[in-house]
Amino acid sequence: MLSHVTSSVDVKDKAIISGIGQTEITRGSKESTNSHGARAIMTAINDAGINASDVDGIVVYGTEDTAENEMARQLGFGDLSYFARVPGGGGAGCALVGHATMAIACGQASNVIVYRARKGTDRGSQHWLGGPERAAGERAWIRPFGMVRPVDEVAVLTRRYMQDYGITEEHLANVALACRKHGAANPLALKREPISVADHHNSRMVSDPLRLLDCCIESDSAAAVVVSAANRANDCPSTPVYVHAFAQGISAGSTTMATFFGEDPLRTPSWACARNLWDKSDLAPADIPVAQLDDSFTSLVLLALEGYGFCERGGAGDFSDDGNLEHGGKLPINTGGGGLSEGFLHGFNHVLEGVRQMRGISSSQVEGAASCFVGAADAVPTSALVLRK
Amino acid sequence: MLSHVTSSVDVKDKAIISGIGQTEITRGSKESTNSHGARAIMTAINDAGINASDVDGIVVYGTEDTAENEMARQLGFGDLSYFARVPGGGGAGCALVGHATMAIACGQASNVIVYRARKGTDRGSQHWLGGPERAAGERAWIRPFGMVRPVDEVAVLTRRYMQDYGITEEHLANVALACRKHGAANPLALKREPISVADHHNSRMVSDPLRLLDCCIESDSAAAVVVSAANRANDCPSTPVYVHAFAQGISAGSTTMATFFGEDPLRTPSWACARNLWDKSDLAPADIPVAQLDDSFTSLVLLALEGYGFCERGGAGDFSDDGNLEHGGKLPINTGGGGLSEGFLHGFNHVLEGVRQMRGISSSQVEGAASCFVGAADAVPTSALVLRK
Repeated sequence: MLSHVTSSVDVKDKAIISGIGQTEITRGSKESTNSHGARAIMTAINDAGINASDVDGIVVYGTEDTAENEMARQLGFGDLSYFARVPGGGGAGCALVGHATMAIACGQASNVIVYRARKGTDRGSQHWLGGPERAAGERAWIRPFGMVRPVDEVAVLTRRYMQDYGITEEHLANVALACRKHGAANPLALKREPISVADHHNSRMVSDPLRLLDCCIESDSAAAVVVSAANRANDCPSTPVYVHAFAQGISAGSTTMATFFGEDPLRTPSWACARNLWDKSDLAPADIPVAQLDDSFTSLVLLALEGYGFCERGGAGDFSDDGNLEHGGKLPINTGGGGLSEGFLHGFNHVLEGVRQMRGISSSQVEGAASCFVGAADAVPTSALVLRK
Repeated sequence: MLSHVTSSVDVKDKAIISGIGQTEITRGSKESTNSHGARAIMTAINDAGINASDVDGIVVYGTEDTAENEMARQLGFGDLSYFARVPGGGGAGCALVGHATMAIACGQASNVIVYRARKGTDRGSQHWLGGPERAAGERAWIRPFGMVRPVDEVAVLTRRYMQDYGITEEHLANVALACRKHGAANPLALKREPISVADHHNSRMVSDPLRLLDCCIESDSAAAVVVSAANRANDCPSTPVYVHAFAQGISAGSTTMATFFGEDPLRTPSWACARNLWDKSDLAPADIPVAQLDDSFTSLVLLALEGYGFCERGGAGDFSDDGNLEHGGKLPINTGGGGLSEGFLHGFNHVLEGVRQMRGISSSQVEGAASCFVGAADAVPTSALVLRK
């Protein structure tokens, strides 16, 4: 019998997020993805109080639309000593920060740029039809049955979740309303008009049981953070935020989207990720006052609340009642509005909002919050972070 | 002024390569890339003395042709807690092992699969023409001038190298002959017929000044290694090999292929990589008795010998004379035959040959070798390893 994980090195609090940057969130942007990315990166570099030539690492999403070495050349980075990509679509965001932290803890880099630049509105819904490759490999088991878009795959998972655990449309609406309430306070957010439970229920069905207001908002934007060695904390012009713990997870038997072929389809990747995350953290779910959870679809927030242990299994519906997910509630989520209201950037805006909470500058600031959980998209190979002041 | 790299954690010798696996190297294989990959991985897992369910991490090339999470599901891996990809084409191979080592040192995983599965002969030379995307981004500066294939870009670099540093066709032949001599002894190698300097000079010009025998051999194959925590060393059925040091490098101003726009085009990425590598190693170039250097093209071996400090700048031509790169010489290279004779697998077979040298089972074994250098493709974002017994 082999030991599970050999924790020979403690990376806890070894790195900080020293700078953040973001471009305006729009739809139908005329600016190139590359330009959005470059602007977000330069804002983050300035916020961190370093020069472009001080950057020696880059880590990006596997699906990143720009070329990171071209970005490095264009922006005048120095020699790079660390570069990687993380697969898993929207599940990668927190892992990027985690991998940067490892590289720093292991002395492979000192200032790592993590960014996501994406023009979601360029693609259109036809994008998901794609060519023959869209039905290749594991997709051959799914596409012929009408599950073409991510929403179709998550819809099936959501129906099963409703059936097995009594999750209702009202519970899904709880998530949508919490995000919109926080989005309304965020001047950067794409959608700021308040919505009601009736608005949610009356919005058009996109893939039964998921309605328009259960789905994140495709948008055009870029966001970047600088991850630096913790010993730079005193040199940061902005409040540094510690990367306290991070983890990744793919449940055994998972497919890329959803977990149809795992023994328990509702044991989403967050369950595998959670075990490693809390193992490495001094904090437990009950200690966390605010959370940013990927909300590509409302049901994924509820599944992740269970997976990460913020409530018991099957208990996320009840947990979401009584405004518990809203500012002033038990566990405010997505305090910038998230993918459902601020805009969808493969979840990377959640990392920046986590930093803002720790800096005390969120537009829905949770008073006295000393830590923040950030969870990337569940139902795909995923990752999570615990940030702290 | 910021410090270069903060070495807060020593990852030296924290991980071992506990198992290796490789499929036969062929051309025109009827077997799928996925099947090649699966066989190589299962061979490595068996060699490491673990079960598939003990695997908790996977790291692959950014250009990997198979889907790693599908591979995990098909082979019965457990929950995965670490996954990444490394960009840079053939420059990624050593970084994969390095990243696995970081994940293990940081307690994120305990047994990481690193693999490459590739059917190079499926693509054909037309592949490089590709669609409009082949001339997008930085390629717009290169493709219109006839530099369509990697060999075209390296040819330009080689001509400049010959002009500035007196490198000759004889020097290029030294590399080809050394690899073929070692390939002749390796029963797995695709090309085993001896070649002469005249054969080299008479082989057809592919992209002036690079001839057919300067170019690696496209082939169909897969190779895998298991990287495990060093505390498993005593449990390994095969001789464990320590990952002593690793590094990555992109020179400032580099493009993806070659370094046309850097201040000094012949300061290839190996220069940036070397500084970090030797910083982290207890060994210096002079201590290394055997080296595996990516030989996508003969000239890249010579450039890397200089970049990594095995000889002085401009001295690799002379260094390659007198059979110095051959078994029995000063620094035998590519003792399995390398990409020029064993077959091209984006350089990942070099890692396996490094392990065989440390196990004492190479078909061109360097007696008493206690360490081995492995360098991934130069002229692209690159990486390197120092392995030791």
